[in-house]
Amino acid sequence: MKYLAIVFLSVACITGSAQQKKPVYLDVNKPLEERIENALSIMTIQEKVALCHAQSKFSSRGVPRLGIPEVWTDDGPHGIREEVFWDQWSGANWSNDSCTAFPALTSLAATFNPALSLAYGKAIGEEARYRNKNVLLGPGVNIYRIPLNGRNFEYLGEDPLLSSRMVVPYIQGVQSIGVAACVKHYALNNQEEWRGHINVNVSDQALHEIYLPAFKAAVREGKVWSLMGAYNQYKEEHCCHNGILLNKILKEQWKFDGVVISDWGGVHNTDQAVKNGLDLEMGTYTNGLTTEANFPYSEYYLARPFLTGVQDGKYDIELLNDKARRILRLIFRTTMSADRPYGSFVTPEHSEVARNIAQEGIVLLKNNTRFFPVPVGKYKKIAVIGENATRSLVVGGGSSSLKVAYEISPLQGLINKYGKQQIDYSRGYASGPAVYGREEPSKLNPDSLLATAIAVARNADIVLFIGGLNKNHFQDCEGGDRQSFGLPFGQDKLIDALIKANKNTAVILLSGNAVAMPWEARVPAIIQGWYLGSEAGNALADVISGEVNPSGKLPFSFPKSLEDNAAYSFGKLSYPGDSINQYYKEGILVGYRWFDTKKITPQYAFGFGLSYTTFELGDLAANKNTYTKSDSILVKFTVKNTGNAAGAEVAQLYVSDPVCSVLRPAKELKAFEKVFLEPGETKTVSLKLTVADLAFFDERINDWNVEPGEFSLKLGNSSGNISQSVTINVK
Amino acid sequence: MKYLAIVFLSVACITGSAQQKKPVYLDVNKPLEERIENALSIMTIQEKVALCHAQSKFSSRGVPRLGIPEVWTDDGPHGIREEVFWDQWSGANWSNDSCTAFPALTSLAATFNPALSLAYGKAIGEEARYRNKNVLLGPGVNIYRIPLNGRNFEYLGEDPLLSSRMVVPYIQGVQSIGVAACVKHYALNNQEEWRGHINVNVSDQALHEIYLPAFKAAVREGKVWSLMGAYNQYKEEHCCHNGILLNKILKEQWKFDGVVISDWGGVHNTDQAVKNGLDLEMGTYTNGLTTEANFPYSEYYLARPFLTGVQDGKYDIELLNDKARRILRLIFRTTMSADRPYGSFVTPEHSEVARNIAQEGIVLLKNNTRFFPVPVGKYKKIAVIGENATRSLVVGGGSSSLKVAYEISPLQGLINKYGKQQIDYSRGYASGPAVYGREEPSKLNPDSLLATAIAVARNADIVLFIGGLNKNHFQDCEGGDRQSFGLPFGQDKLIDALIKANKNTAVILLSGNAVAMPWEARVPAIIQGWYLGSEAGNALADVISGEVNPSGKLPFSFPKSLEDNAAYSFGKLSYPGDSINQYYKEGILVGYRWFDTKKITPQYAFGFGLSYTTFELGDLAANKNTYTKSDSILVKFTVKNTGNAAGAEVAQLYVSDPVCSVLRPAKELKAFEKVFLEPGETKTVSLKLTVADLAFFDERINDWNVEPGEFSLKLGNSSGNISQSVTINVK
Repeated sequence: MKYLAIVFLSVACITGSAQQKKPVYLDVNKPLEERIENALSIMTIQEKVALCHAQSKFSSRGVPRLGIPEVWTDDGPHGIREEVFWDQWSGANWSNDSCTAFPALTSLAATFNPALSLAYGKAIGEEARYRNKNVLLGPGVNIYRIPLNGRNFEYLGEDPLLSSRMVVPYIQGVQSIGVAACVKHYALNNQEEWRGHINVNVSDQALHEIYLPAFKAAVREGKVWSLMGAYNQYKEEHCCHNGILLNKILKEQWKFDGVVISDWGGVHNTDQAVKNGLDLEMGTYTNGLTTEANFPYSEYYLARPFLTGVQDGKYDIELLNDKARRILRLIFRTTMSADRPYGSFVTPEHSEVARNIAQEGIVLLKNNTRFFPVPVGKYKKIAVIGENATRSLVVGGGSSSLKVAYEISPLQGLINKYGKQQIDYSRGYASGPAVYGREEPSKLNPDSLLATAIAVARNADIVLFIGGLNKNHFQDCEGGDRQSFGLPFGQDKLIDALIKANKNTAVILLSGNAVAMPWEARVPAIIQGWYLGSEAGNALADVISGEVNPSGKLPFSFPKSLEDNAAYSFGKLSYPGDSINQYYKEGILVGYRWFDTKKITPQYAFGFGLSYTTFELGDLAANKNTYTKSDSILVKFTVKNTGNAAGAEVAQLYVSDPVCSVLRPAKELKAFEKVFLEPGETKTVSLKLTVADLAFFDERINDWNVEPGEFSLKLGNSSGNISQSVTINVK
Repeated sequence: MKYLAIVFLSVACITGSAQQKKPVYLDVNKPLEERIENALSIMTIQEKVALCHAQSKFSSRGVPRLGIPEVWTDDGPHGIREEVFWDQWSGANWSNDSCTAFPALTSLAATFNPALSLAYGKAIGEEARYRNKNVLLGPGVNIYRIPLNGRNFEYLGEDPLLSSRMVVPYIQGVQSIGVAACVKHYALNNQEEWRGHINVNVSDQALHEIYLPAFKAAVREGKVWSLMGAYNQYKEEHCCHNGILLNKILKEQWKFDGVVISDWGGVHNTDQAVKNGLDLEMGTYTNGLTTEANFPYSEYYLARPFLTGVQDGKYDIELLNDKARRILRLIFRTTMSADRPYGSFVTPEHSEVARNIAQEGIVLLKNNTRFFPVPVGKYKKIAVIGENATRSLVVGGGSSSLKVAYEISPLQGLINKYGKQQIDYSRGYASGPAVYGREEPSKLNPDSLLATAIAVARNADIVLFIGGLNKNHFQDCEGGDRQSFGLPFGQDKLIDALIKANKNTAVILLSGNAVAMPWEARVPAIIQGWYLGSEAGNALADVISGEVNPSGKLPFSFPKSLEDNAAYSFGKLSYPGDSINQYYKEGILVGYRWFDTKKITPQYAFGFGLSYTTFELGDLAANKNTYTKSDSILVKFTVKNTGNAAGAEVAQLYVSDPVCSVLRPAKELKAFEKVFLEPGETKTVSLKLTVADLAFFDERINDWNVEPGEFSLKLGNSSGNISQSVTINVK
């Protein structure tokens, strides 16, 4: 009789394995690429495919057998979304996930302050890390094309240079904590209407000059570790598996080495998903099916169909290896990186960052009769009117909706600042409750609300109307566009009535979009706030009271009417399209490029914002008269604080190319700097650009091109207020 | 007009903080205690108190503000429990948490192989780590006092030395992965009946000699990082806040520096919880209330009442600091330790560990006529009868219930080994479905099941009956004790009928407890299996087929009748008590100590188990005749494999102290070694003990004591089979 001595072997094995050398992929002293290749070399095909699709609403598998952690994504970009059930969108009722709400990205853009963007990224990265998320689904850099887009509040405005300068430090900040940023939505997702399928037709020049630069900066300068494909189509391929956008531009031209993640449910075709550059398929309700039971994760386009395709030889294994390699790279850069910090959650430092950004993002649009600031103690009674003074503006809006540790409402901020006795509040109008996917009209009587507000306004020294949009569907909200340009819920009527009741009525708008202002000429003062996050009320009160001098600038133009907006002016085929196609007929003339070129005066120009002090820009000079194509251009000028208060001015350098073989905008922002000055102080500012920055995208050569000749450098404090110019020559 | 230059300050602050030095508590190069004190020094009272109680079913808060991670516990000890909802016991339906089931701890104990315990700890530690759990709620080391205890299957048997030797490497293994083990249930939780309140009366000698040694070894040798208090009372204080057990013995005498965690809902009094050594209160349904709404975590004994007590000066802040310090220490040892491995989940290596332990733990109790092994191909038809051949034995049993990646049933294992054609299965009897908290009788007809099984048995060459207990309530299950000593569900009747139908009927029992064996003399062969985990069927088939030679030994005595069990023999006040008190009247005479001392022959003795080969133990010698009290004792002997198969024998060294001023057991296990031998091979084994190991706990001096005189060292391969003795003297 012969028995195998398995008992001996097994103990020997165990002892042996304990003494084995650490495998290469676990050795943090080995180069990243070596670790990736080592892991890849010992993974099965099934394990590789499992990396490429979701396992739950927000996670995908790692490689459990090898101890490679799962990928846990989380909706940013304004805070860390609450935990949801494994396979439901609803909150999982955890009690440890109430986050800090940072101001919306429109607010960040309005600061024109890249240092705050870095601080934002670090802080939100720390919150993500503490909650064990290794991919933050943001920031969004889709260009503000039309004020109706429901998701503009999540983006960085209408200008490619501004969004590029602001997105890079955000990404660097997030990723410095060992959390991947995921820049989105790539590309041309400039409206919510029909976002799931609309096919965007755009010129190559507009694509490269307007819609791609922020993504390119995110990749080339921000070194972003992941990127999210958009829902819509381009050249009749969905952007989540679009060969031109992903393979050709992103991966070949820009050398992106990160992970392309689909928007949730944005994948529609295995063949394209496999071959056209998608790496990780996320989402549920894919393919129009509504439950996990109908369409389990195992049947995702990049799940079983991908696996069998590889096994049958239909798909080259290298297509799978490339995706797996990128996902491993992301994991090694985040969860498995050495010395990754632990992050932190809901800290005084994060609140301070949120408050700083909110303060610096608030834009003073009008301030006749020195209405603002309103010093504490100056007035006996301040009427605060409007729903946005008390409504939560972090809840709603779609995927960026947040469960927060706290949110200081404008009313609370004002009470904190001025005292309870000084403030009389009345709601004035009512929207419906926050409900995603349908409008829920308020059941309150508008006339009665208005009458009560008027009575309160009459009794006060001044009136602060705090309204705007909110995060309900068809307002500033994912999944649908605004239905009209005007303020909703009868606010225009209310403002008219308030002005009649009390001429000292200022309008404070909280929104992520421009709105019609039929009352603009009749109010003494206007503030454009945004969705300001947890510290909203404190920041607003800081600016209103004058403890903080406003320094925000509009990151997008406010047109007088919707008809003045470029995209809208070309009719329905331009916006929103015919449900199948849309045509970006305005081409490169987006935002101020349109207003300037077409000589249309906007209500408020891109880059505009007042201060409680005054500034002078002067002494503009370039370091040379004539440049070659490889030269840098050094520009100097002075900024002087000519008023009585410390404050900050954003000096904006635009360039125009008056003679060119193709249409160019009247001018384009090429550099800016926010300058902080004490009263009377003057600073000399140097800005550096390159001649290459003056290029346009030349469709004839399918590349960037600088035509020799004269260029005009224009200095101003908004696109509508150029104070000095110099002309340079390029040979 | 004067404006504060907050805008300047804020940017400066952000820049400044980015360059700040890493605080001491985050610096992995600093000593642990320095990091703890630094963190403690910057925490608020609220933050400290928040550490001390649950925030959800299995987690407690960290310090989010400081980036100190949460504590996530997970029920072991046999595998990583599935994710549950935040505040419900039910599974959260995640798809990434199906674990490897390791054999139950009774099976591990039966291996008598500490190397396997280390492998077990490492493997389960890796699974815990991969699932981001930093406290594994196990192992359990409560002493097997009576075969009715529903939770015996989770423990390491009846002997303090065996459980001490096995628990230490398990803890070392788990903690080598950066996961805290949590040894439980401290102490005297030796039955499930009335476990929530029964007051255990036990002599100090029995406490220290029988019930505490494994805990002491866990603390002193295993350096365990956490310990769980028991539900029951001792000296009329609940064990979770018992001053003698926790403060005096555990923390003062044993110098435990880890965290005392309450069993879930085991806390009943804030004053005692604060003062008597509890650190972390877990559980819900505390205080008899049934929902979170009734008794939120914020109202836990160590939550608001503790906080206000500290704030009001009722409790010294140092009581709070001590708890917070311990919890921080645990966090720094686990989540925040440098170079913590990533773990892994459901790996071939973990399956191999599980299979090895299952193989080595299986005990061959009887093997007349060389029934076993059953070589592949020897018989045409093997009848497999019995529900445990197919029933899941990883589901149920209470908190140790597992959702597994796979479980090879005995039937599947046998089919894999012998082929589908060779195996005929019939269920034979039926228990109810696995339902926690009540018995659910089967709806199947027992007579019909029996008749079918008999027909199958008649047609076969041999019959393998696979029965035993299961994980239902009142079987081997938390929360209740067994209702009788006999096999349930009519198995005795079935076995009788099978023997009559086919005399070649072997009985294979899967259970965590001894059972009555009225048919013992009439069956040719008996195997005691256990709850063997994911690899159960493979391991059983390995042993049955002879590919693995059985080497398991019973970790507890099998009495012939319940009346022969010590605890039971003293009547209801001894077990289960009068619902308020119980009295451990058998004192130190637990398990084989009782049988040996009282000269009662058990059905199968502690330490007993057959092999397919035979062994001889010989040449026993001690290194001296006479020892002083500080001496070590070196014992040598030989073990020879006298049969034809490779195999392993467990040499067991018992000591008796024939003359002592207090009662001592006839003999006590003091050392053992599992020896692996090829056929014909002889090995010399050296065992080292100390004279101190011979001590008894002397209640007169409240300390351990060795009285000079003769001691007998007895060598055998079970407590019932001593083959050699030597006498030594202690001066």
